[in-house]
Amino acid sequence: MEVCRLEREISQAVIRRMPRYYRYLGELIDAGAERISSNDLSSRMNVTASQIRQDLNNFGGFGQQGYGYNVKYLYEEIGKILGLNEKHHMIIVGAGNLGQALANYVEFEKFGFAIIGLFDVEPDLKGHSVRGIRVYMMDELEAFIKAHSVDIAALTIPKSRADMIANRLVELGITAIWNFANVDLELADKEVVVENVHLSDSLMQLSYNIKKQVT
Amino acid sequence: MEVCRLEREISQAVIRRMPRYYRYLGELIDAGAERISSNDLSSRMNVTASQIRQDLNNFGGFGQQGYGYNVKYLYEEIGKILGLNEKHHMIIVGAGNLGQALANYVEFEKFGFAIIGLFDVEPDLKGHSVRGIRVYMMDELEAFIKAHSVDIAALTIPKSRADMIANRLVELGITAIWNFANVDLELADKEVVVENVHLSDSLMQLSYNIKKQVT
Repeated sequence: MEVCRLEREISQAVIRRMPRYYRYLGELIDAGAERISSNDLSSRMNVTASQIRQDLNNFGGFGQQGYGYNVKYLYEEIGKILGLNEKHHMIIVGAGNLGQALANYVEFEKFGFAIIGLFDVEPDLKGHSVRGIRVYMMDELEAFIKAHSVDIAALTIPKSRADMIANRLVELGITAIWNFANVDLELADKEVVVENVHLSDSLMQLSYNIKKQVT
Repeated sequence: MEVCRLEREISQAVIRRMPRYYRYLGELIDAGAERISSNDLSSRMNVTASQIRQDLNNFGGFGQQGYGYNVKYLYEEIGKILGLNEKHHMIIVGAGNLGQALANYVEFEKFGFAIIGLFDVEPDLKGHSVRGIRVYMMDELEAFIKAHSVDIAALTIPKSRADMIANRLVELGITAIWNFANVDLELADKEVVVENVHLSDSLMQLSYNIKKQVT
């Protein structure tokens, strides 16, 4: 059923591993590597070679028998799979420490995500800027989104206001939300792409693994 | 094979869902709910009822036919599974915006994680404090860890220094690392518990899902 390969749904588990491949390949490029065998990549990444082949076969392969992978080519292809060749305009709603931390990540721009504004309700922050990115007030949101064709919002606000603000952002044209509020958003529009970073969940997983280690 | 149930390894996929159950049950408690059927929990959480039953059966069940789940009991039991009844001392290494954002999360303490110090190399930060948590200099690390029996370190530093500092922390007695540096740590001691929050990976996954939505 070779023909169906690109048609079927690729599991989120596979997708979740792709950024990691991308990261390792980027490090290989920085180190001057031109090609790598699936065995070498496997031992570096601590994933079986067959897992790597299986994962990449979801997208059509990229390896050559007896050669392995061309590092730069594979890096670029995975970048395209992840959509990193597209350009996006992102705003950060919530200019507290976490919002400012995100604004300071220069590398997000390398992936096509330009952070073009921070928003907050705190009047003291008005006119401030973080790495040249200005902080606006929430009442400037509508005009800003329209003027700058913003498609993504990172939400770094308390969970109590998250649903309300997320739905407002969607009404204003935002199509994707990177959600740091500690709640699963309930959105009226089910087509919106949501990616959650639940820090508490992560800490609880750490807690479980500590407990498991001890027992 | 009832007897083997608690012996076998529980998959990380199941564990990854536990904090979410815990979060929803916490919200139910706040809303005054005393019991919930697996169907109700299922529709709230957007997970099938059979998935919920299967997940919880890994730990012995907790539900009663015709009654459903006792919310408070289930909340407490999942808390114990996750080890949230244990107390931990955590330090944050890297007192930039992200480190300060973590220090400001009051709820981590509810899960048993007391943040007792921030560390940085920036002399300007010396003596400052965030929500009453003091910023120390890196050369105070060793004495501090010994004096306060610290077991966990959150790493909010650039990836270039992450391996070196993580290994030093482990030498000083840290047994678990909550890693925000954008790299998979290479630790000499393989027993150390590591939980990664790779923000770039998360953003790439968002990127993939945007691209998928469009096509």
